[in-house]
This record gives sequence, C-alpha cells and structure tokens, in this order.
Amino acid sequence: MKFGVCYYPEHWPESRWLIDVQLMREAGIDIVRIGEFAWSKMEPQYDVYDWEWLDRAIDVLGRAGLQVVLGTPTATPPVWLSRAHPDILRVDADELQRDHGTRRHYCPNSTTYRAYSRRIVRAMAERYGTHPHVIGWQIDNEFGGGKTARCYCPNCVTAFSAWLAARYKSIETLNEAWGAVFWSQSYAGFDEIRPPHAGVNYKNPSQVLDFYRFSAESYVAYQQEQIDILRDLAPNHFITHNFMGLYRDLDQHALAKALDFATWDAYPTGFPERWRNFLYAPDADFSRNDPVYAYDVGEPVMINMAHALTRGLKQQPFWIMEQQCGHINWAGLNPQARRGTVRLWTWQSVAAGADVIVFFRWRSTLFAHEQYHSGLLRHDGSTDVGYADLLAMQAERRLFDVVTSEPHSAEIALLFDWDDLWALELQPHRTGFDLMRHLFVYYRALERMGVPVDLVSYRNDLSRYKMLIAPTLHVADALKIAAVTDAVEQGATLLLGVRSGFKTPSNLVTDQPLPGALSDLAGVMIVTWESLPPGVEWAVTSPIAGLSGAASYWMERIRPKNDTEILATYLDLPKPDNAALTCRSLGAGSVLYLGWYPTHEQATSLLQALMQEKGIRPIAELPEGVHASRRGQQLILLNFTDSHHTVKVGKDQIVIAPRDVRVISAPV
Amino acid sequence: MKFGVCYYPEHWPESRWLIDVQLMREAGIDIVRIGEFAWSKMEPQYDVYDWEWLDRAIDVLGRAGLQVVLGTPTATPPVWLSRAHPDILRVDADELQRDHGTRRHYCPNSTTYRAYSRRIVRAMAERYGTHPHVIGWQIDNEFGGGKTARCYCPNCVTAFSAWLAARYKSIETLNEAWGAVFWSQSYAGFDEIRPPHAGVNYKNPSQVLDFYRFSAESYVAYQQEQIDILRDLAPNHFITHNFMGLYRDLDQHALAKALDFATWDAYPTGFPERWRNFLYAPDADFSRNDPVYAYDVGEPVMINMAHALTRGLKQQPFWIMEQQCGHINWAGLNPQARRGTVRLWTWQSVAAGADVIVFFRWRSTLFAHEQYHSGLLRHDGSTDVGYADLLAMQAERRLFDVVTSEPHSAEIALLFDWDDLWALELQPHRTGFDLMRHLFVYYRALERMGVPVDLVSYRNDLSRYKMLIAPTLHVADALKIAAVTDAVEQGATLLLGVRSGFKTPSNLVTDQPLPGALSDLAGVMIVTWESLPPGVEWAVTSPIAGLSGAASYWMERIRPKNDTEILATYLDLPKPDNAALTCRSLGAGSVLYLGWYPTHEQATSLLQALMQEKGIRPIAELPEGVHASRRGQQLILLNFTDSHHTVKVGKDQIVIAPRDVRVISAPV
Amino acid sequence: MKFGVCYYPEHWPESRWLIDVQLMREAGIDIVRIGEFAWSKMEPQYDVYDWEWLDRAIDVLGRAGLQVVLGTPTATPPVWLSRAHPDILRVDADELQRDHGTRRHYCPNSTTYRAYSRRIVRAMAERYGTHPHVIGWQIDNEFGGGKTARCYCPNCVTAFSAWLAARYKSIETLNEAWGAVFWSQSYAGFDEIRPPHAGVNYKNPSQVLDFYRFSAESYVAYQQEQIDILRDLAPNHFITHNFMGLYRDLDQHALAKALDFATWDAYPTGFPERWRNFLYAPDADFSRNDPVYAYDVGEPVMINMAHALTRGLKQQPFWIMEQQCGHINWAGLNPQARRGTVRLWTWQSVAAGADVIVFFRWRSTLFAHEQYHSGLLRHDGSTDVGYADLLAMQAERRLFDVVTSEPHSAEIALLFDWDDLWALELQPHRTGFDLMRHLFVYYRALERMGVPVDLVSYRNDLSRYKMLIAPTLHVADALKIAAVTDAVEQGATLLLGVRSGFKTPSNLVTDQPLPGALSDLAGVMIVTWESLPPGVEWAVTSPIAGLSGAASYWMERIRPKNDTEILATYLDLPKPDNAALTCRSLGAGSVLYLGWYPTHEQATSLLQALMQEKGIRPIAELPEGVHASRRGQQLILLNFTDSHHTVKVGKDQIVIAPRDVRVISAPV
Repeated sequence: MKFGVCYYPEHWPESRWLIDVQLMREAGIDIVRIGEFAWSKMEPQYDVYDWEWLDRAIDVLGRAGLQVVLGTPTATPPVWLSRAHPDILRVDADELQRDHGTRRHYCPNSTTYRAYSRRIVRAMAERYGTHPHVIGWQIDNEFGGGKTARCYCPNCVTAFSAWLAARYKSIETLNEAWGAVFWSQSYAGFDEIRPPHAGVNYKNPSQVLDFYRFSAESYVAYQQEQIDILRDLAPNHFITHNFMGLYRDLDQHALAKALDFATWDAYPTGFPERWRNFLYAPDADFSRNDPVYAYDVGEPVMINMAHALTRGLKQQPFWIMEQQCGHINWAGLNPQARRGTVRLWTWQSVAAGADVIVFFRWRSTLFAHEQYHSGLLRHDGSTDVGYADLLAMQAERRLFDVVTSEPHSAEIALLFDWDDLWALELQPHRTGFDLMRHLFVYYRALERMGVPVDLVSYRNDLSRYKMLIAPTLHVADALKIAAVTDAVEQGATLLLGVRSGFKTPSNLVTDQPLPGALSDLAGVMIVTWESLPPGVEWAVTSPIAGLSGAASYWMERIRPKNDTEILATYLDLPKPDNAALTCRSLGAGSVLYLGWYPTHEQATSLLQALMQEKGIRPIAELPEGVHASRRGQQLILLNFTDSHHTVKVGKDQIVIAPRDVRVISAPV
Repeated sequence: MKFGVCYYPEHWPESRWLIDVQLMREAGIDIVRIGEFAWSKMEPQYDVYDWEWLDRAIDVLGRAGLQVVLGTPTATPPVWLSRAHPDILRVDADELQRDHGTRRHYCPNSTTYRAYSRRIVRAMAERYGTHPHVIGWQIDNEFGGGKTARCYCPNCVTAFSAWLAARYKSIETLNEAWGAVFWSQSYAGFDEIRPPHAGVNYKNPSQVLDFYRFSAESYVAYQQEQIDILRDLAPNHFITHNFMGLYRDLDQHALAKALDFATWDAYPTGFPERWRNFLYAPDADFSRNDPVYAYDVGEPVMINMAHALTRGLKQQPFWIMEQQCGHINWAGLNPQARRGTVRLWTWQSVAAGADVIVFFRWRSTLFAHEQYHSGLLRHDGSTDVGYADLLAMQAERRLFDVVTSEPHSAEIALLFDWDDLWALELQPHRTGFDLMRHLFVYYRALERMGVPVDLVSYRNDLSRYKMLIAPTLHVADALKIAAVTDAVEQGATLLLGVRSGFKTPSNLVTDQPLPGALSDLAGVMIVTWESLPPGVEWAVTSPIAGLSGAASYWMERIRPKNDTEILATYLDLPKPDNAALTCRSLGAGSVLYLGWYPTHEQATSLLQALMQEKGIRPIAELPEGVHASRRGQQLILLNFTDSHHTVKVGKDQIVIAPRDVRVISAPV
Repeated sequence: MKFGVCYYPEHWPESRWLIDVQLMREAGIDIVRIGEFAWSKMEPQYDVYDWEWLDRAIDVLGRAGLQVVLGTPTATPPVWLSRAHPDILRVDADELQRDHGTRRHYCPNSTTYRAYSRRIVRAMAERYGTHPHVIGWQIDNEFGGGKTARCYCPNCVTAFSAWLAARYKSIETLNEAWGAVFWSQSYAGFDEIRPPHAGVNYKNPSQVLDFYRFSAESYVAYQQEQIDILRDLAPNHFITHNFMGLYRDLDQHALAKALDFATWDAYPTGFPERWRNFLYAPDADFSRNDPVYAYDVGEPVMINMAHALTRGLKQQPFWIMEQQCGHINWAGLNPQARRGTVRLWTWQSVAAGADVIVFFRWRSTLFAHEQYHSGLLRHDGSTDVGYADLLAMQAERRLFDVVTSEPHSAEIALLFDWDDLWALELQPHRTGFDLMRHLFVYYRALERMGVPVDLVSYRNDLSRYKMLIAPTLHVADALKIAAVTDAVEQGATLLLGVRSGFKTPSNLVTDQPLPGALSDLAGVMIVTWESLPPGVEWAVTSPIAGLSGAASYWMERIRPKNDTEILATYLDLPKPDNAALTCRSLGAGSVLYLGWYPTHEQATSLLQALMQEKGIRPIAELPEGVHASRRGQQLILLNFTDSHHTVKVGKDQIVIAPRDVRVISAPV
C-alpha cells in the first residue's frame, strides 16, 4: 500500500522543492503526481518547449526516492492555442463558446485540438517514456468535469453526423430507429441532422440518447489517441485516468477499458452535497446529510457507492488519485476536517478496495481558482491537519499492507448501465425517477446491513456473484439479457425491478407486452404501470417478513406466467393481475420481478430474505453510523459518528471510538 | 353526440390499419383526426408529393364508416424546408434561433414560411377538399404551444414596424401613445423600433402590449391564409382549431372568429399543475391540487373554467379535440387514470357544452417525444383503461345524445379581455396580481355553489345574462364600456372590481380620476388604491351577510357620487371616502364597484346576495367535490371524489358513487 | 434645510407648468431637479438642438423662486445614436447586446459614446453654465443601476487589456500577480486577455477582481469627462451624482472623490427587499422585514446603513436626491405609504445627515416604465399622500433648519472597502459570507443601542473616531494597514474580525501565517480557520459579560503573540492555540482580533464592553422599533412602529406616537 500526493512544482520557487520533498518523505509519501495542468510551462509558445524545469522537478523527487506519475496536460490548453485556433473551443447547448481562463474548454472532436494533443503527449512521452523515476501516466484530468461532457460546436455537428452514418448506415434505418416520422422529423441525409442543442426545446429521446453515446465515445476516442502514443513510447508505464465517482455524463466503463486500472477523486464533504438530490428518496426532504454522521466526514454511503462503482469499472483494486485531506473550496459549506477524519477517509478508501491513496494537494495554492482548497500544507508552508493525520498513519503502514494484500470481494452485485441511466434521465415520467436513486435504495440497505456489494456493468464478469440486482434494466439490449440469463442459469438469483425491458437499444418503447424482451426470462407480463403521486399507495401483502405494507412512487401490476411463483400481491386488485413480486426458477437460479419502487425498509426486508436463501451473511451487525468492509481475512470497522459504538463480531464486542477505525483479523 | 380519436396511420404498418379500424368501430368511434403532423410524409422532398398512403388511410377509415378530420400539417415543417430556408425559424427573445427536431419552430411572419404553408394546404385541399369521407379541417395545431407565441426574428422586426405604422399612421402618434418621451425613447421613424427582446431589460409597457397584440394578430393572419384556401377548395367542410384552455399568450377570440366552431385539448391531470399558480390565492400555498378531489381526476374547477372560456369563444357548443384518456407525459407526476375516470372526464366535457369528444390518442407511440403518453391502446396494441371506459360508455350513448341535444346556458357571465390579461401581467404592481386569478375567485365560488357561468369577452353577446362580473376591466376602451353600459341599461347587474378603468387603449394610465372612463358608469371616484402586503388588512363592514371582515391583498377607497349607494365601508376610514362597495342604478340595471380583492368566502357571500336579487338559483346544493352542470332539462352531477355523496335536487336525494356521474331529467 | 422635487416638464403640456409651480411653492419646495432623461428632447436629431422648451421650463421655475438642478442626460441616449452607432451599446457577460428601450444601455468605454456624451454636456453647459436659476448639476443618473456596471463588449475587451498593461507594465508581472501559471493560463501578451465573460464558467479570482476594478474605474473616467466640461463652463455650480445606497458593483468612494457632495436615492420600501438577503444572518429565515416595524416604513436599520455609507463617502452632509414619497413600482409588494410615513422618512434622512430632501417625483407618470410609482401628485393631478405630509412639514421648517445647522458626528466607525467586498463575493467559501452582512451585524447592534456610527473607507479621515471596527480587512494593502495602524497609535481601539489579512492586493492568498500583513499589528497568529455548517458550534468563554456562548458560522483559532491579551477562549481547544478574542496594546490604542463571526447578541455585548472602556455612550435607551440620531445638540427620535413608545432621555420620559418624530434639544 502506498501514499501519494498531488504536487505542482511549477507553482513554487525551486528553492522550496527540497523542503517539500523532505516533508513528503517524513510523512511517508511514496508517489507524486505532477504535470497535468502545466502545458503552458512545457510549451510556452507554439513549438517552443521547455522541459528543463520538469526534468529538475522529477530529478529532485526521484532522488528522494519518490515515484512520479505524470499527467498529460490536455485539460488545460495554453492561451496561444485558443487564440490561434478558436475552433478548439467547446460550445454549449445554447451556442455560447467557452473560452480560456478555466479548464476543459476544448472540444474533443476538434481535429485541430486532437493534433495538438497528440503533439504534446508525444513530446512528453519521448522525454519521459523511459525515465527511471516515472512509473505511470494519468491521461488528461477528470473527463467531463464542470459539465463539459457534451459539445455542440461545428466540429461536433460534423462528427455527430458521421457517427450516425457509421452507426445506421442508411438514413432510412436512422429514421426508423428514431421514429423520425413523428412530427415530420424524417431526414433525407445525415448532413441534415444537428446535435440536440438548446434551440430545440422538446427533443426526440432517441436522438438525444445517441448524442449522449456519441459524446461519450468522443472522449474514448480522444483518450485512445493519447494511450496509443504512450503505449508506444512508455511501454513499461501504467496508464490511468482519474474519474469522478458517481459522475453521470460519460461512460466510465468505456473509458476504463483501455486503462491499466481506474482511479477516482474522492471528496467526501463535497460529493454528497452534489449527489444527495439524486440518491435519497425522491419525495424525501434531505436538505442535509444523514444526521447520524459527524458533520465533517461526509456521507459514507454515497462515497462507498462511488468506491463500488470505480472498483467495478475493471473489477479490480483501484487508486484514489485525489483524496480530500482537509476542506474543499467548491461546495456550499466546505467544513474543515478535524484531526482523525482524513485518516478515517483513508481507511474507508482502502477498505473499499483502494491500494494507493494520493492526497490532493500538497500545499494550498496561493493563487487562482482553488485558493480555498486545503493541502497537506497550509498556504504559509506549515503543516495542516491532513499532514498530521498522515504522520499518524505511518504507525499503521504494516496494517495497511496487510489489508491491501487481501482482495475485496462481494457475493452480491448491483447492475448498472449508462444507457439506462441516460434514457431514464431523459424521460423520468415521474419527477425524480432516476437510476442512481433506484440503485441507491439497494446499495444503502446492503451497506447499512454490512453486506459487501459491487456496482458493476452488465458487461462485467457476473459469474462471481450469488445475487444480481437490476433495479431497472431499462434498455433491453441482447447483451444485457444474455448476461443475466447466463448468470441465472449458472445459479444466481436475479432481482429485476420496475421499468425493466421497456426500451429498445435505440430508445424506442418495445411493441411487445412488458417487460418486453425480459418477459420470458422473468416469467411475467406487466399489465399496467403507474406513477403514484405523493400520498397515493397500493396496499401490498407478502409472506416475506417485513415486506408487506404499501407500494408508493411507482407500481406495476404483474401477471405471472405458467409456473412463476407469487411472493407478494396487491391487496385491492383481482387475480391474475395482482402480483406485486414474482419468482421464476431457471436453470440453477431464479429470477424475481419486483413490481414497485421499494422503500429502504422494504428493500432491506427483501434482501434479507434473499440473502438467507443464498447463504449470504453480513460482515457484522452494525450500529447506525458504523460501516464495515472486508478484504479477505481483514475486517475493517469505520465509525463515522461522534460517539463510541460497540460492534459484535462473532463473539467479540469491538468498541470503536468516534471517527476511529478498527481492523480485525477475522477469517470468514 | 359523437366520439372521435386522434390517429397517426403513418406511425404504423398498413397491415395494422384494419385491426385498428375494427377496434375503433367496436368502441363506438365515429370520427378520426389525422394528418396534422405528417408534412414530411406528404411532401418528403420539395415539390415531391406522396398522397397515396393518405388516400389509403382515409379510404380504410371511410369504408368502415368513420368520418375524417384532416389537420393541416404546418406545425411541423419538414427538415428540407428548415435547412433550405432558415429564415422560417422562430427566434427567441434572447436571440436563440429555434431549430428542427420539435414542433412549432416556425415564424408566422416569415414570407417564405407563409408561401410554403399555402402550398401544402392548397395541395391537401385540392386532393381532399371534396373527399366524401372528410368532414372538416383543423388548422395547424395548438397555436402558441410550447411558449412559441412570440418571435423576435428579422421577419418580425420588419413586420412589427409595419404593423405599428399601420396602427399609428405617424410616428408622432406612436410616440404620444407610448409616452416615448420618457427616458429619451422617442422615435423618428418606425424603422427605428425593435420588438421588446431580452436585450431591453426593463421595457415600455405600451410597446410590449402592442408587441403582444401584433404577435396575436400575426397568428390570426397566418391562420386566415389557410382558411381562405380551404373555404375556396373545401366549401362544405368545417374549419376549426384546437385551443389550449386557459392558455394566455394569444388572443383566442380573434383566432376563433373565422372558425366554424372552437375545440380545445383537455388534459385534466396536466393543466391544473400548469395553471394552479395563476389561479389560487396569490399568497396561498397550493403545492398540490385541492385535496378534496381524487388524485387522478385533476382539478375540475380549473378544467371547467377552461371549458367555459372555450365555450365562450363563440358562445356555442364546442368539441374536445384531444381528450386525455389515461396518463400524460409532460407534467411532473403524471398519474394514470383509474377505471371510470376517463368516463368522468367525458361527461364533464359534455356537461360543459362539448358535443364531440375526440380522444388523444389512439395508441401509445413507440417512439419520439410522447412515448409516455397513454392512448386508448397500449404500446403493444392491447386495449388500455381508456378503451375500457369508452366501451362502457357505449351503453350511455342515448343519454349522451339527449344531453347534447340540449343547450348549455348561464345567467351569469365573467368578463374577460386579452388586453387586460396582458397589461396586468406586464405590470402586476403586487406580486401575483393576475386577471385569470381574479376571475378564478368568482369562477370558483359559482362553480362550488353549482351556478352556471360563462367566461366571455366584452365583444360577445352580453344580452343573455342577468349578471356580469368584470373583476378588472383594466384597459378601458370605448367598445368595452359601451358593451357593459348597454347591458346594464337593459337590466343587467354589473359588478366591477379593483383596477378597473386604469388604462387607456395604448396602455397609458388615465389622467382622469379613477376609475377613469368608468367613473360615471359606476358612479364612484377611487380616492386611493393600495397594494397590501401579506398580513395587512383593512376592516370592512357590510349589511350583506358574510361580506364583513377584512380587505386584504388590494384595496381601493371609494367616494360615491350623487345617489350611488354604499353597500360596504372601511371601518377605520372617514366619510365620504370610506366606501368599500357601492351600487348605482342605471336604466333597468345597476353597477356595483367592489373596492377590494375578495376572498373565496367573500366572493361567495356577495354573489349569493346579488343572485338572490336577480332570482338566480344554483342547480343543486352540492357537497364539496361534487360538481353540477345543466344542459336544458338535463342535470349532470359529477363526483370527483373517492367517496359516496348525496345531492339534494329539489325534493330528491341523489346518491352518487365515487368518480361516478348521474344524469337527471329535471325541468328548470 | 431645503426641500426639492424631481420634475419632468417635458412630460406635461406647458399649460400645466404654472399650476405645478404654484403647487410646488405652496408645499414649500425650494429646488427642482430636471433634465436628466431628456436627451432626445434636447437633441431630437443628430446635431439639431432644441433648447427653447428647456429655457421656458427653467424660466417658469426660476421666476417662481425655485432653484434648478440640471441632470446631464447621458443615462438615456436617443435612438438615433444607438441605431447609427451600435458600438455604444453595452454587452452582457453572456454576449447579449443591450438595446434601446430602457436606460443605461451604453458602454462607458465606447469612444463613440464618450464623444457624444461630451458633446451634449458641453452644449448644455454652454447654454446653462451661468444661468441665474441653475445652482448645480447631477452627472448622469444612478451609475450601475439595473445591473449595468460591467460591460463585455469589444470596446471593453480592448480597454481592459490596456488597463492591465498600464497597471502591470509587463505581462510577466501580470502572470505573477494573477497566479496565471495555474491551469496553464499564462499569457504572452495583454492582447490575449479577455474580460471574464460567461464563456469562462470557473474564473480566476485575480482576473475577476481586476475586471471589477477596471469597470469601476471606467465609470470614474467616464464621469470625469463630464465634470471637466462642467468645471470649465459652470464654475460656480456644484456637481454631484445620485448614488444607490448599499449598491455593490461600483466604487462609490472613487466616484464621489471629484464631486462636491454626494446624494443618494432613498426608497425605504424597496431597498430592504433588495438588500435583506445580503444583510441578515446567512442561515436566518428573513422572508419579510423585521416584524417590529410598521408595514409601510421599510426597515430603518438597512436604510440608515445606506445613509451612513453615503455620509461616509465624503464625510460630510449629503442630499437625498430622490426621496420616496408614496409607493414605488419596482419591488414585489409595493405598499402605499400612510399619512405620516413620508414625514418620518424625511426626518430619518435629515437625522442621518441629509440637508436637502428632493422628493421623487412630482407627479405620477401617465406612461412608460414607472407608471405605478407615486409622485407628490396623483396621475390625475390631484395631491397625494406625500404632498399632504410635505404640507404638514412646513410647520416644522424652523426645526429642520435648527437640526441641519448642526453636524452629524460619531465616535465609532465601521471600515469598509470595495476590494474586500468584491473579493469575498467572488470566494465566499461558505454560502452567504458577505462583507456587507458582516458589517451589518455591528451596524445593527449599534443602531439598536442608539449609538452613532459612520460607515467609512480606510481612505477616509479615521482620526475622528475612538473606535474602529473592521469586520473583515480582507485584501491587506499597505494603505489600509497604515491607516488603521496610525489610528490605533493615536489612541483608537481597532476591532479586527475573521478573514482579515487573507489576501494580497492582486487577490492572492498571503504566503505568511494569517492574518498575514496584519499579524504584527494584531499580535496574533491564526492557527486554523473553519467554515462551520449550520448547527456546528465551538463553545466560547469570556470574562466579557454576554460574550460567552457558541461560535458559529466561521471560527478561527488564535495563537496570541508575546504580550497580547486573551479576552475569550475556545473551551474545547488546548493552549496556546485556543484564543477566540485577543487584545494587543499599541501606542495609545489597542487592537482586538475576534476569532469568530458573532451573532447580534454577541456583537452587542462586545461593543458594550468596548464602548464602556472608551467612554462612548448611547444617545438614549431605545425600545425596539424606535431609533435615535443626534445632530449636535439636537436629538431626533423616530418611531417606526405602530405603537406608542416611551424613551428615557436623561431624566426625561419622552412619549412618541406611532410613526411619529420627536426632536429634543439635549446638550451632550
């Protein structure tokens, strides 16, 4: 297990570098990420390169025994490039062209920008591709950050048309796939199509979903050009990218495919504020984090879900490329971390499967956009609270190594797909219906119970799980159906939820009875589906303990086929269309269809019943606010509250102090 | 009485058409509306027409005995037209040009678009103007829908200047009419004037009102070009347009003038959500519909007010051109209708004066913008809840015929004017002062009491009413004053409310004591007027039962003239300026002036007193949630709640089940 | 003491002028402001002037003994100018060009507009610069009103580059000053820089602060061109400008420098609504004004703070150039003033240091944007409530003269700086941290206690104050530090608050321990600083009565240096870093540093302790809702409530009626 830090040598006088490096070593730093925003320092004028400062910086770091991760600087083009070639600039949906003065203002489909990106990456790789102190590369920085995933510039108009032509071959096929006959939208040629910009106030959802896919693939292609150069010139270095947890607008799986491993940037006090409204119950009032947690620790359920998503990208350990180590500057309240909280976050990340923790940032910047963001050092160069925690963690290095040498594994997977996320985002039908939220109901129930769960794609290896939960398998493409069918036949329990099987791959509604292509697999037919306004409920009864009660928010009446078993019914509806939860056996496994959007309590009850059947047991019985994770033989208990708690592990009573961590060797 | 349905044969394989037609016949459908969005199917390339599919569709329908209403497809220009002539595209107030991919993105003042519109309408009319299965035409679709009533493109800059030149003749007259001397705005020529776009952050209200009028007239002129062609080539067909109920941005009366009858598109679960904030008390918290009603029926008061407005457009029976028959897709919650609710809505429409109910739509679309909108059939072609209700209503066809053979009539009219609506919208002075809301106070009181009321223009025939309510006769033009004066002299009681007589036709303030040109008619002078913040009230006393209490929201001190009688006074103000409600006799009638904005309870009390005087009696005594309407001898009771209710009609106790309808033959 | 009125003779027939003038004289009007929006009347076409009407108007006024203040009409360019030279039009941050039809749509950096401005001012000055009835000039009108302070047009792109070149001399210096190395923003030349427009979604705070300064200086330079002409051609006339109280976007001190005195436009029912959210506690729910006050008087604390700011601009008496005299038209609720309220406001202004009260406006306009704004006369020419109050005040003219002949003086000053305001606005770090709000805590506490306080700049004369409060001396430039150091050495008590000393003049963070350059002066080092979310508190204890309790919202741990005394400590923190309030003696004075953002009660307690030490005593003991001011020997008591109150002054019990004023001769 290694510690790292994000460092900007170009921001400080060289005379300071040696002091910084010494302080890094004293705190046990092993790895330093540099360079990812320094294009204008590397190439201050067109074709005039200045590598000497970077050579010296790497040298100073390397001689102190630090390993260097280099970032390609393409998130921040120099001003001379923007002024000479304004066609590289991204354009918003409302036609406003972005400009120099921030980051990520480029268009990934600009042929000009692609050429300049390749040039700077090639130049860096030629210089450092075999450098002894460099161990790997981060491509660009936080693709899509700052709502930059989609561009509507002329480059993209052309590229989108070409992408559609490649996808659909003939315009007739596209018209069919989009239902373009509706409202006279039929096209005679691909060049008549534009991205769905703000001038179209009410948009065709098939067109928009394709534009989202096109945008996502644009970044994959853009990234691949950099990867190709690095694979060629830095063949012994790893390549990664720093993702943003539950970020929604790009396909993280597609981006991760060509990387050696995934990393993400974890900001526990910021991301919950950003994600809260997408995750908690749609009609709930969650103006603040769950109050059970201490005010400065963030919301561990949400952060762990982001860990789970990143871990699932490649189903292997990952890095935290930027770990919050104090306060941040971009949220609303930005509380400072107290002593111990940075350690708690570090253990939380490691417990969730991270093997390397890179803190962001070394020292608070004196200038520009991120002045109010903590570093391990303060503005004045003295050590801050994160540094103190890091020092304290040096005593635990052996324990970290023990833990990270073990695998993280789960018997349950939550299934997730970008098409489903976007299609539901485009047409929620009921305010607040969101795939992340629907996943969160189950994620939270399992996390609270202390049951490990992975958040994975249908394209991941599903064979390792006993139970699969697909809250909404919405866009029913053949690959997804085959994947879950295969897993069920091999013995898995699959739980399908409402609005599954609704859409075709081009975002049309199926013309078959619902759940469409999943109907046979689930052994059911959906007779009606309803959005339920607040306060409107259908009474449900079930033999499963705790599941009876009320269906709210969304309900579907199920008619079971043939031998499909009924596990819950709507009390006020007549047979045979009154099933609310069904189960069909298939091969060695079974498929359940849950006809309503469950509450936290209902999800907990249902999962408990299914887990019992599959012999899946929680890691520990957890008091509220204490979370648990397991890596192999190691059990990690994390207390996110301001109180002492006692956790029962087997026969032991483990006491855990406020915001403290306990690691227990406990064979499964 | 006839049933109809909106059908899109171009969306389905022809092989399905016969099945659809058979299902229509089985459900008692008589009329089918088609074609209104199919331009790109009719003219897939410029000047290349394809009528064969439409011939076949009409043929299939007609041979099954169905009558066809054809829509002109000008709400949805084909993409080749937008790409070849981008000058046809509407431009928003903030200069964003609208684009292909939705509907209503055209500019009604584009000479190019007008020419192309005439061409396609002429071509359609030449082919179908005498077709035996076609009975009439719908012009375009929902003028103004999707906030498209006003355009700021170069076509409109020119057209607005020309419109102003025609209206004011000389620029001096315009400067005078607009008070352009204010803030150095005086113009030397009409070509210096622009529409009041977003670049003018604080606008001259005379200019804006004229621009609203100009925009409204633009659509009238645009529509007239289509009407002229159809009158010529389809002389035996009716012509109509589908309006949008309480839609505000176009002058529905002006548009309706040249039509044979009016229709509107009734969406009971969607429009209340849209209108609620314009209708309930301005400081009230109405985050949901009135909770007395069942969750899936909408808010009948609001929908009935929209019926009343549409009925008043031509003071004759109307059609529902699109009647909701399940859930819709464009509101926030979109609940599904339960069995019986579609029947309830159908009877509600008929009770309000509709003679033809056309359901929207035949089958849920598999693609594009409206995928989540119910049809009578589901996506998979099976019958949905609306179809079941329609089938059930076949047993009532005779009763429907009885009811629709009777006239809808009212003794009370609410007076409404677009100039007043817009002028108050531009200068509410107090947050939330809105003419629709002010009308709604009275509308709701009467509807709740079970008293028929029409919502009519000052230009309608007022001679048929015993009582006229003009909550705010704001822009005091000669025509309006003459109309109400004449009605009063003939015997009507006229109730005038606050802010009446304030403005001149060009939206200046009168330089006469208020209520300006209405002062003599009402026999009063307004001494002061005040916007009252929440919680600020003036005590009022009146001999009229229930009227005493507090004046809130808005108050005016009235000084009665000569023999004007005082019916309420402000307790804390001195004579003679303390009148709060006055009454002046004139000819056979009388004119009241109410000096404050009444609550629901105050409006109810005042109306009861006035009705008693005029011998106007409610249809029935109604429990909350039960509404009543009368067509001639037929009394229709509608229960919008989830409970049984008993209604006393004469000596009879009529029991009415939840969401049920009772029709009673009850001579007046 | 004089009364005045804003009059628009060009809006009324000349036949009315004599009536108006007679009514003015009867009400005791001495001064009339005219002309400030009449450019199109003065120069109806390019280079064609019409002065005759204005000659006649001035003549009519002057012959009646009225003195005329002329406004230069540059807030409202005529349409011929905008159409001929669209480069004069301001452009918003989102690239939308402003247009004719409102006011203030010009760019102050347009060389074209500057030339035309000079021409019209020169022409006016040539005609009226020595006119016997003219006494002075108002430049333009409400610089920055309607969010117009900043322009992003091509003129400004060029001017901003030039301004930066003049400020920084070399681009290397600018890159250093902005920290442009961050995110590759370094510039090679000034011409590569653009204003921070909306296309840059996340901006460099040094760049933005410089742009705010540039914008502010643009108006100073624009104004100076008019002043130069007037000084030359109207050497015996005063020159002023009408400011907008707590308006934030321009540097009022810089604008006031070249003026003879300052004036402001006081709208007591409108400005509180506008400012409330910037002033009351950031997590407080203040949806309405402080309910202790009568509903029609506004919020006197806020208005008095605006008086204090305007008074401080030049540390001398000022005018109210526009005093509300009824209701206004531009807020949400716009209540009408009751009889007595206009008198109350007039006395409030005079009590705060105003010597001339000019009412806005003479008569309600019949047309255009401000129709719903009261005048002294109504639309119909009859006298309104303000006129009645003005008439009543004639009996008090001698008392007004007595009061205005006395100086307004205070022993306490609140220190304020535009750089600090803007820098904190750009990076509040915690939602709602705002300098005005931080000032308001102290202002309100003092105002409520009846203690006079000035709101002044660090550039003002500080020697007259015993106590200086700098809630946040944020951008620590040498001038500010020298000013407060000097004052302390001379004997003043200086109270510094959180976030002081944080920034350098170019908006970088200091690289020294906080409070940076103030560290020696205050004798402290800030060890940590924290934004505290709602509900998170640090316990504080202090020997100062009433100060113990909780630190919320923002806290800083203080380590006192050397002999710095500790006046409050954080209970739960260890020495020596647990100081919460410190005091260091310096010369004849002392410097306190308060480590948290105080509540109203805490500020009150702390101030009471400090005042006692300095021998500063309240004017009177005030019941809630009664405010007091002192001018020399005259004590003015103002009752802003609807109840009678008794005020103890010395040994006397003064009874004051609702919304009444008492003036008491009370030697200090």
